[in-house]
Amino acid sequence: MASIRWVGFDGDDTLWRSEDYYRQAEADFEAILGHYVDLADAGMHRQLLEVERRNLKIFGYGVKGMTLSMLETAIQVTGERISARDLHRVIEIGRATLQHPVDLLPGIRDAVERIAADHEIVLITKGDLFHQEAKIAQSGLADLFHRIEVVSEKDEATYARVLRELDVMPSGFAMVGNSLRSDIEPVLGLGGWGIHMPYHVTWALEAEHGVAADAPRLHVVEDASGLAAAVARIEATPEA
Amino acid sequence: MASIRWVGFDGDDTLWRSEDYYRQAEADFEAILGHYVDLADAGMHRQLLEVERRNLKIFGYGVKGMTLSMLETAIQVTGERISARDLHRVIEIGRATLQHPVDLLPGIRDAVERIAADHEIVLITKGDLFHQEAKIAQSGLADLFHRIEVVSEKDEATYARVLRELDVMPSGFAMVGNSLRSDIEPVLGLGGWGIHMPYHVTWALEAEHGVAADAPRLHVVEDASGLAAAVARIEATPEA
Repeated sequence: MASIRWVGFDGDDTLWRSEDYYRQAEADFEAILGHYVDLADAGMHRQLLEVERRNLKIFGYGVKGMTLSMLETAIQVTGERISARDLHRVIEIGRATLQHPVDLLPGIRDAVERIAADHEIVLITKGDLFHQEAKIAQSGLADLFHRIEVVSEKDEATYARVLRELDVMPSGFAMVGNSLRSDIEPVLGLGGWGIHMPYHVTWALEAEHGVAADAPRLHVVEDASGLAAAVARIEATPEA
Repeated sequence: MASIRWVGFDGDDTLWRSEDYYRQAEADFEAILGHYVDLADAGMHRQLLEVERRNLKIFGYGVKGMTLSMLETAIQVTGERISARDLHRVIEIGRATLQHPVDLLPGIRDAVERIAADHEIVLITKGDLFHQEAKIAQSGLADLFHRIEVVSEKDEATYARVLRELDVMPSGFAMVGNSLRSDIEPVLGLGGWGIHMPYHVTWALEAEHGVAADAPRLHVVEDASGLAAAVARIEATPEA
């Protein structure tokens, strides 16, 4: 039987809502730009995504980088016609996104508590350190976790480092998250277990992944109420 | 005799140059604004500092927050007259600052190696996770450190957490850094040792501190060549 010593949880869109606030920010951004250009003609969504992708390796993930990318996109698509007042509104969108409330997803506290009763649990969340720490504090979940890791990228190298520090083999680790790209693929790649809990929206840059629907060691749950059972199913799996 | 088990090092302006690049960014920023306002009349330096101070609790430390604060200041001091083209130049200042080369301070590699020969060493650096990780990688010093901590704030609570994780008492810990506020004061406050290595420039918000020049357990060195001797002096201190 597989023995899971540590269970990892993603933060954004796994413990609490996040992408909805980014979507709202993008809608507010487009409402400002709509005064200057035809949004469909300008291919606004695609242009913002391209600027974000280009900036990712300089800015990293998070709201401040998104805000700077929105400003660049606004200047670019308006041919530098946008007013300073409207650019200030774009900065205010970023500020509001950084201060959004932290809404736990339904049933998540109960699910985390049930899993923590039998396992060590670690929060592994990606993005801006300052904003993630603020969200962790506001979530009220911090005390449930035995360890918290804010990381700049969720790839195999990052998970390998975290597992080394936790002193656990991949076969004894299961990761819960909404992103196949960031939470599941690298953990499966190392030989660990993935519990995918899809969220109703996914950022385009997170939607790129190479996980097969029938990948071994991958379990899928509909919502938080299925998480504890998924861990139990993993532990009932006969050793390969 | 005092026994120092762990020696901590700050990153920015202790291991590598940083504030110089921020000063350059501010000079470039003022050069753009000089086309709109009389810089002295506008009290540009003071206004930027006020915007940064107000934004610190929302943006945290780092270049992306500085860039957003510069954009806000530019819009504010020009009464929204600044052009989108010039605001884009301000974003480019931020991008250039994020990509500045990592220049080690004179003698620092040698000093770190000498101290690492007899002690465990930890890098404790504050700011943007993504940018700090990039600088650590480029510094070529990462492999010398037994542990690396990027933190969002350097106060007593942060150092207390790090020392707990290192399993060391404050009396067995010495922190090397250029900032009395961030590197020295909280460590002395916990009962640890401080080795202050002043840098030739200090950000105004880091210059606010309450450390007396003759504080107990505080040692001051002129440059990296004095660091190993300072640790040795601490270890030669009779127990209180």
